[in-house]
Amino acid sequence: MNIKLNDHFLEVKETYLFSDIAKRVKKFQEDNPDREIIRMGIGDVTLPLPDSVTSAMEEAVKEMSDKDTFHGYPPEYGYAFLREAIAAHYKDIGAPTVTPEIIYVSDGAKSDLGNLPDILGDNPVIIPDPVYPVYVDSNIMNGRKISFASGNEENGFLPLPPSAEGTAPSVIYLCSPNNPTGAVYNYEGLTAWVDFALATGSLIIFDAAYEAFITEDKPHTIYEIPGAENCAVEVSSFSKFAGFTGVRCGWTVVPDTLEVNGVKLSKFWARRQATKFNGVSYVTQKGAAASLSGKGLEDCKANIAYYKRNAAALAEVFTAKGIYFTGGVNSPYIWLKCPGNMGGWEFFDLILGRFGIVGTPGEGFGSNGSGFFRLTAFGSYENTIKACGYFREL
Amino acid sequence: MNIKLNDHFLEVKETYLFSDIAKRVKKFQEDNPDREIIRMGIGDVTLPLPDSVTSAMEEAVKEMSDKDTFHGYPPEYGYAFLREAIAAHYKDIGAPTVTPEIIYVSDGAKSDLGNLPDILGDNPVIIPDPVYPVYVDSNIMNGRKISFASGNEENGFLPLPPSAEGTAPSVIYLCSPNNPTGAVYNYEGLTAWVDFALATGSLIIFDAAYEAFITEDKPHTIYEIPGAENCAVEVSSFSKFAGFTGVRCGWTVVPDTLEVNGVKLSKFWARRQATKFNGVSYVTQKGAAASLSGKGLEDCKANIAYYKRNAAALAEVFTAKGIYFTGGVNSPYIWLKCPGNMGGWEFFDLILGRFGIVGTPGEGFGSNGSGFFRLTAFGSYENTIKACGYFREL
Repeated sequence: MNIKLNDHFLEVKETYLFSDIAKRVKKFQEDNPDREIIRMGIGDVTLPLPDSVTSAMEEAVKEMSDKDTFHGYPPEYGYAFLREAIAAHYKDIGAPTVTPEIIYVSDGAKSDLGNLPDILGDNPVIIPDPVYPVYVDSNIMNGRKISFASGNEENGFLPLPPSAEGTAPSVIYLCSPNNPTGAVYNYEGLTAWVDFALATGSLIIFDAAYEAFITEDKPHTIYEIPGAENCAVEVSSFSKFAGFTGVRCGWTVVPDTLEVNGVKLSKFWARRQATKFNGVSYVTQKGAAASLSGKGLEDCKANIAYYKRNAAALAEVFTAKGIYFTGGVNSPYIWLKCPGNMGGWEFFDLILGRFGIVGTPGEGFGSNGSGFFRLTAFGSYENTIKACGYFREL
Repeated sequence: MNIKLNDHFLEVKETYLFSDIAKRVKKFQEDNPDREIIRMGIGDVTLPLPDSVTSAMEEAVKEMSDKDTFHGYPPEYGYAFLREAIAAHYKDIGAPTVTPEIIYVSDGAKSDLGNLPDILGDNPVIIPDPVYPVYVDSNIMNGRKISFASGNEENGFLPLPPSAEGTAPSVIYLCSPNNPTGAVYNYEGLTAWVDFALATGSLIIFDAAYEAFITEDKPHTIYEIPGAENCAVEVSSFSKFAGFTGVRCGWTVVPDTLEVNGVKLSKFWARRQATKFNGVSYVTQKGAAASLSGKGLEDCKANIAYYKRNAAALAEVFTAKGIYFTGGVNSPYIWLKCPGNMGGWEFFDLILGRFGIVGTPGEGFGSNGSGFFRLTAFGSYENTIKACGYFREL
């Protein structure tokens, strides 16, 4: 063929992070067939869906097998019952301005984060480092110029905005609780970003996928911050809250107050979703709605508490050992500084070889991740406690 | 905000087709509260999912509620069991070169059709007219220059390629069986397009969403045509075949032989999907796989036969009346020329007022749709026969 491709794709860095990890683990297993492996590497949930959620899904599947209750094409932006349930959740977490009409249900936060650049023009992009790699890669694919907001030990991996003066209107990505660092902005920090966005005419894309892990007094949603309705969209997900990584459901909030020269951003997103997407499975949406009320909500909160207990146990060990880390409190992640100035891969090999523990070298999340390491709390309590014992020996 | 938006979105024509239809139907109902409405407008299935499929989905939901059988993040390009089942289907329809590794499972054909322009550069685009509006709209959103291949009475709404000489490498959309015309390319027609694409260095995006309706000796997949593996991707879907409009599952075939200057197109699509998408629900994939074998396949074929019987009944009436139409044989659509040189909307009002029948004016599918009308065979047999009786009176 002689057609032109989108050559920006060639600028995306090939990442072998998880395949490299898999290779090293495989070799370890071959060399040590009798050793147990404790997996704390991948950010995937492990607890099954609660019966309260699966029974709603089973009920929905049954409806699909009956002519009178069959559901064809779903509404493009989600069933009213789910948009209303999500809006009720926003009311609970202190953001009553998030009404059903501005909530767009999708097949997951990753899709929405990847697709949002579709509706935007050629703006400078500001992304924290370290960060979830999708923000960077999807913007490189669109040929955008990225500058990084440096997360580091000094600012607790919660970078604050640069000076508004001289900064062009930009697209800003924020993730709180952060993946991979587990760090969570407080009200002052997030207000600084909102004020910066308002002062520079910028748009914030706020990733709240780990919101449900917040228990301290920190913002659950950017719409708790005054002015956010004029500068921010928010992307969120049932993946971590309800264990939906394998079910696929998320949403994006696009307030109708977001405008550029009188043109509503919501019109662009609505058009994008209506043209390039066809809604989410009825069965999935029924399960998602079940996770947001009554027994379903209770059960999902219990699962979150289970993971948080793991995170707390890990945090206790690293605190006792005087190892610097972020996360562990309002997050399923522990982001620790590798002891003895080790690099992330060096530490990876050390704890795999000594303890059989698999984690993720910080190098996979940006240049500021160098010398850091991510552990997840998504394993079983028993394995996490075992890992804690090993880390105490460090 | 002062950021730049993707202003190409403003060039997309606002369509009020289905909302206009809804408004006219609502008014009719208010004016005639006792009249029955026969809906033959929207291309959505109406038969429920077969038990053979829903029982696989229920089983999958149960697995999700058990720690030992829970499934987290799905593989990015689909579970092996589903990719293998789709490959087996391609073998059955005469395209054994479509192997599991080149099949990318997604949440539906519409998503893939909308997202494919992501990976392409600024090429001229050739789209048949009339056609499914997503091809046009998603390319306008990317700022592409579109030329139309005219479908009309003369070519039976199956336009052939222009002269290869002087045609720049292009991106070509083909849909067969076509939505809205129901017309299906024969081997000669599709071979002409493949030869044209090979001669001009073009890429064909082949939409095979209605493939399961083909019973005559016509190509089910573009990979039945020699050379297609060097110039074509194919997008397909479980929506119409298995009644999955409300379940959401489709796929795209990207042969590894598709290359531009030694760069594989599959690498771009794989990267796009891995970055901006997170796979399809385990429950959905289990249901999709069930529809492709044994009892599931039998049941889905029975549903297709049910719709095809409706289409045949309609075709018989229009044939008897000497009204020109395409489709009705290998397709759930009848695309008819409005009698008496009426425009589509005029005919819409006529049959709504006289018979209570709702269809879709051809004007919604491109300028060549003017004066034509789409009827779908997705209603009940009883209603279709009733409609046939009315059309006989025309």
